Formats: sequence, structure tokens, C-alpha cells
Amino acid sequence: MHPFVYDIPVKVYFGENQLGHLGEELKKFGTKVLLTYGGGSIKRIGLYDRVINELAQAGLEVFELSDIAPNPRIDSVRRGAQMCKDHQIDVLLAVGGGSTLDATKFMAAGACVDHDPWDFFNEKWAPIREALPIVTILTLSATGSEMDCGGVISNLQTKDKIGRLAPQLLPKVSFLDPTLTYSVSRFQTACGAADMMSHILEVYFNMEQDLYMLDCFMEGLMKTIIKFTPIALESPDNYEARANLMWASSWAINGFINGGKQQAWSCHPIEHELSAIYDITHGLGLAIITPRWMEYCLNDTTVRKYVQFGTNVFGIDASLPDMEIAKESIRRLSDFFFNTLGLQRTFPEVGIQASDFPVMARKACRGAVLPGFQPLNQQDIEEIFRMCQE
Amino acid sequence: MHPFVYDIPVKVYFGENQLGHLGEELKKFGTKVLLTYGGGSIKRIGLYDRVINELAQAGLEVFELSDIAPNPRIDSVRRGAQMCKDHQIDVLLAVGGGSTLDATKFMAAGACVDHDPWDFFNEKWAPIREALPIVTILTLSATGSEMDCGGVISNLQTKDKIGRLAPQLLPKVSFLDPTLTYSVSRFQTACGAADMMSHILEVYFNMEQDLYMLDCFMEGLMKTIIKFTPIALESPDNYEARANLMWASSWAINGFINGGKQQAWSCHPIEHELSAIYDITHGLGLAIITPRWMEYCLNDTTVRKYVQFGTNVFGIDASLPDMEIAKESIRRLSDFFFNTLGLQRTFPEVGIQASDFPVMARKACRGAVLPGFQPLNQQDIEEIFRMCQE
Repeated sequence: MHPFVYDIPVKVYFGENQLGHLGEELKKFGTKVLLTYGGGSIKRIGLYDRVINELAQAGLEVFELSDIAPNPRIDSVRRGAQMCKDHQIDVLLAVGGGSTLDATKFMAAGACVDHDPWDFFNEKWAPIREALPIVTILTLSATGSEMDCGGVISNLQTKDKIGRLAPQLLPKVSFLDPTLTYSVSRFQTACGAADMMSHILEVYFNMEQDLYMLDCFMEGLMKTIIKFTPIALESPDNYEARANLMWASSWAINGFINGGKQQAWSCHPIEHELSAIYDITHGLGLAIITPRWMEYCLNDTTVRKYVQFGTNVFGIDASLPDMEIAKESIRRLSDFFFNTLGLQRTFPEVGIQASDFPVMARKACRGAVLPGFQPLNQQDIEEIFRMCQE
Repeated sequence: MHPFVYDIPVKVYFGENQLGHLGEELKKFGTKVLLTYGGGSIKRIGLYDRVINELAQAGLEVFELSDIAPNPRIDSVRRGAQMCKDHQIDVLLAVGGGSTLDATKFMAAGACVDHDPWDFFNEKWAPIREALPIVTILTLSATGSEMDCGGVISNLQTKDKIGRLAPQLLPKVSFLDPTLTYSVSRFQTACGAADMMSHILEVYFNMEQDLYMLDCFMEGLMKTIIKFTPIALESPDNYEARANLMWASSWAINGFINGGKQQAWSCHPIEHELSAIYDITHGLGLAIITPRWMEYCLNDTTVRKYVQFGTNVFGIDASLPDMEIAKESIRRLSDFFFNTLGLQRTFPEVGIQASDFPVMARKACRGAVLPGFQPLNQQDIEEIFRMCQE
């Protein structure tokens, strides 16, 4: 168990009808607001008007940047950073899902430097020393960007999709209103659940000595996602289901569950190479990869973690042989992703071609070894890709 | 499910050998430090010297206030508040358990007002609008004061023991090093565990619709305490056990588990009346009261919460009749408190006399009704006291 620092000073307004606090929170940071959002769904659900109204009532000056795409692009980030400079923005208000939030974080950082924001991601790995303050209103439970200090940005020119963390990027305040996710589609709800499950599994599957209380918490989060996602799919406006999924999305990745573990993620870096080329939804890519990765990493040493997972999360009979419990736990997880959530099961179904396996695998491990639950080299990752073909 | 605000901006250094960060954290707030501690156990374990050394290396000016007693007294608070004023203290450093931390919080608040600090607790209920910054080094896992914004202060003159919450009292930084709890006695370790269990049960036993994920987390915390306290009693220097108990103590009461519940505690206000008169250890009083309170509140309406508790925390067979599961869950909890932890089981064993029942019961419900899992009037509380006699 390693020493760690816990430091998550995000203030969260959770529940319905909390937007009345939006103006007072933004005004703490100044008067000029850059409002960022995606493709306009916030207008369809009436959220845009509510936000504009709150900002007007608070006497704030608002600038807008819209059309932030899923798998957000560096072009949006560049545009937003420039707007912050041009208009001397005091605070950014991101309204949307993880893509809008992630892009906004790097606009806030880009506003504070003279160089191209892509330098935060390319080989220059420019330091992130400061960022303008960020407030968020979440409309999709998935990435946890509302309570973490990271983001992932794509560059279509270089076919790169790269994540970066910096404490300066942590939102100051996030508004989490489960009713704002009522209109999220079946597909996006399912992909969000797969994304959350993966965030937890990347930390949970670890052979280091754990803080048992955090393992219990992770199991509770996974049971929550498994219990409430089908309810949300069936009844999109079930408040209890949407609320549990929304709060679980934040806690799956805000850093609390990491505790004393040294971390190295596996499925996320692999998936980023898929969506860098194919632009598929991140959660869908994770759903396809994760059970195959689990299967590939299962052996006599790692089996105990699968047994813990299978018995505590799926309630598999603990008296069965370990290897049987482990395999059953992978079957149950696959069943959740592909039957309960209805996500596509294989690469061919989403159009991913075997000819791209070598280059995606090489980029995922940066030509060497991807550390993680089990270290994976290019051959290992290609084998996992082949397992995704059927 | 009610809307809520989550706002716990405490930075925590968790684990061994993190005190090297003490100076840098304190210096953020100024140069004059009031170091507070209790009866000298921090000198016995060498912690005092380590702290003084870190403060000296950081070039900080240190003033000391020691001898803060268990069930901390308003006299210590008055003394500390005056010292802050006399020496223009910038930041308070509390080193110890919940008593030292609680007293220090109200010194920090008392330093910012002209009136007697007892006015925060008596009928004046003076507002807490500001407080000097507080940093803590925890040496006892129990009250959670290191990550919450409350404290409880006793007044021996008036025989009052009163708690108060205010966001201004939240520590800025807390150092949680499990090795600093190795020397905690069997009895104090056991009382700490009972205190934590009670913090969770006060929130868990609630008939409102819950956030399921928080119920899972509470069950995980309780399983953690039940699993690791016996290990810590057996092997006081077991790092894994002490670490799990330490982090659990913070999360049992920092506010996260409250989620969307309207809360009203039962056992804590009742226990405060015991220790106001008898000065017994808070956790011990809670251990005696809690199982009787559970028994008293059990009925056909409340039984479902007991079933959830018994099956998820103690693994009681879910196919048994509900009332049987409920009673067995109370038996298991009693067994944990009185056999596993070895705490005294009855009022006569700790010297609490029946002649004090009426006055303690009346004060606990303030002469009316104590709201909570089940509302309790004076007669109800006296009946719970009578159940504690054997």
C-alpha cells in the first residue's frame, strides 16, 4: 500500500433545481463567461434557455462556443483558448457530456499559454501550470470529467487521441442534475455505463495489496451500474436510476478509489487507438475490449482477483473452483455489455479491420510494453484484438 | 431523494512518512502556529519531536497548548482562543484524536470573535462566520473530525455536551499516518470502532429512499470495521488493519454517505447525555446504546432496513423470515461490540444509575421529541436506558 494524497476540492450541486446557484458560483470568478457546449441537444431539452436566463439574472457577460464534437478535437480547443484570450474570459462554463467538459478543460489551460494547445499532447508535453476556472453542468453520466482533472483530446490530422491529467483542470463547481440525463439515448446510456464499468475495472484489477474498504466501494459502484442501467434503459426518466448512475460516474474516476495503488490502465489506452482511427464511441470500444482483456490476463496468479469480482459483484457461488468462478465472471460481464445493454459485441460489427491491428497495437504500447494488471506488448494487444473478431 | 451539496475540500496526506509536507502546507497560511495536543502520548511515540523538527525546519514560530482532555472542555477552547488572539496566530495545528481536533476547531472560531466561545453552544448559538485555518495530524481513528466540519464540546459546570457544525471548521489539510495509531490501546481502538459503526448506522438506518450506491458504500465501511478491528486488537502494528480503520473513520462521517437523505441522529444525542454526566468514553456509550436502540425501533415497517443490514453486512441467510434476520443482525452487532471488541455491555458495568435516566432522557429529546429513524420522546429514551441495564 503506497502513501497517497487525496485532494478533490470540487463542489457539487447534486439533484433537481439547483441551477439557481449557478450565477452566484460563477460570479466568484469574475464577470466574463465562456459558455461551451456540443451539438445543440442542450437547446432541445430547454437547458440552454435556463442557463442563459441564470447568467443574465446574475449580470454576467456571456460568450459562446458550440459544436464541440464527441471525441473532442484539438480544433475546438484551439478555438476556445483563442476566444478566452480575445475576450479576457474569467471563467468557463461547460454544459454537456465528457467531450464538452474535456475540451473546455484544455481551452482553460490553453488560455494561459502562448503556444498551440496541441503542445500539451504531442512530444513537447508542455507543462500545465495554470488554467482559468471551470464550472460544469453535466448532461451525460459516463466520463467522470465533472469531478476529475483529466481529459482526452483527438487530433484527426495526426490520428492521435491522447489523455492528460493536471490538478489545475479540476472543475471548481459541477452541477449534477439527474433529470438532465433523461433524454440521453439508449445507446449513449449503455456506452456511458460501459465507460464507468471500465474506469472501475482498470483500478480494481490490480494485484497490489489494496485498501479493502476501497475494493468494497468499487464493488458497490459496479453493482450500482449493473442494477440501475437496465432500469434507465427501460424507463429513461427514472430519477433513482439516473441519480445513482450520475453520482457513480463521478466516483468511478475522481481518484478516491485509487487509494494506495500504483496504477496503470490497460483497456483505455488500447481503446483510444481504436477511436483515434475509427471515431467510434469510447464506451462501445471499451465494452468490446474489456471482457477479452480479462480473458487474456486470466492465469493462476491473477485468478484471485476474478474470484473476488465474481463473488462480490455478481454473487457467483464462492464454493465453485476458482477458475470456474473467474470464467463465469467474464461471461456475466459480457452478458451485461452485449445482452443487457445491447452493445455490439465484435470488431466486424463496428467496422474495425484486422489490417489496422498492428499499428493500433504498436501505438497503444508505444512500441514497448503497456504496463498494467498484466504488462502487454504489441503481440499481446494484437492477440486481444483478434479475440474481438468473434 | 433530496438535492444536496457535496463540498469536502480537505486535502489528505495518507500513509507513512508524509510529514515532510507539513511545513510547506502550514506556510501557505502564515508563520505563527498554535500547536495543540492532549496528555502527552504524542511525546511518548516520538511524534512531538518529529513535528517540532518539521516546524523548525520550515522556519515557523510555534506556540503550544497541551492537556486537552477527552470529552474536550470549553476551558481548553477558551484558553486556545485567547492564545490565538494574544499571539496573532495564523494557523492551528492539532495533533491527536478527535478531542484535540474538536477543541482546536472551536479555538480557531473563538479566535475570530469577541465573545466567550461557549456562546457557540449555549442558547445564544452565536454564528460561526469565520475561523483560523486548521491543519491536523491524526493519532486515533474514531471521530472523523479530521475530515468533517463539526465538533463536540463539554461544559462540566453546566453538565452539557453539545455538538456544532460549520463549514468554516473544516480542516484545510489532514495527515493520516496509520503507524501513528499503532500505540492506541485495545480499549480505545475498540471504542473508536464502535464510534465509527455508530456514525454509519445513524445514517444507514433511515426509511427514506436512498442512493443505493451510498448504501453499498456504508455496508463496505461497516464490513471493513468488522473485519479489521479484531486484527488491530490482535496485532496493533498491522498496517493494513490500521490503514483501513483510519480511512474508514474519515469517510464514515465526512458527509459523503449522507447523499440525498434528510438526517436526524439518534444514538449520538442520547449518548452525549451519558458522557456529559458520567464522562465515559463516547464510543463505549454508543456501543451500549446502539443495539438496544435498534431493538426498540424494530417493527413491521422498519424491518426491511434491518434485513438489508443483516444480509449485506453480516451475510445472514436472506431466505430466513425478515424478523428473524433483523433480530439476528442485532445479535451479531452486539456480539461484535461486547465479545469481539470486549466492550462493557451494560449501564451498571460502567456505573450509570437509573436515577439519572429521566434527566438524561429529557435533555436528549430537549423535552420534546428526538427525530430520527424512529422519533423518540422521553419515555422512549428511558425505555432504551432500561434495556441497557442488563
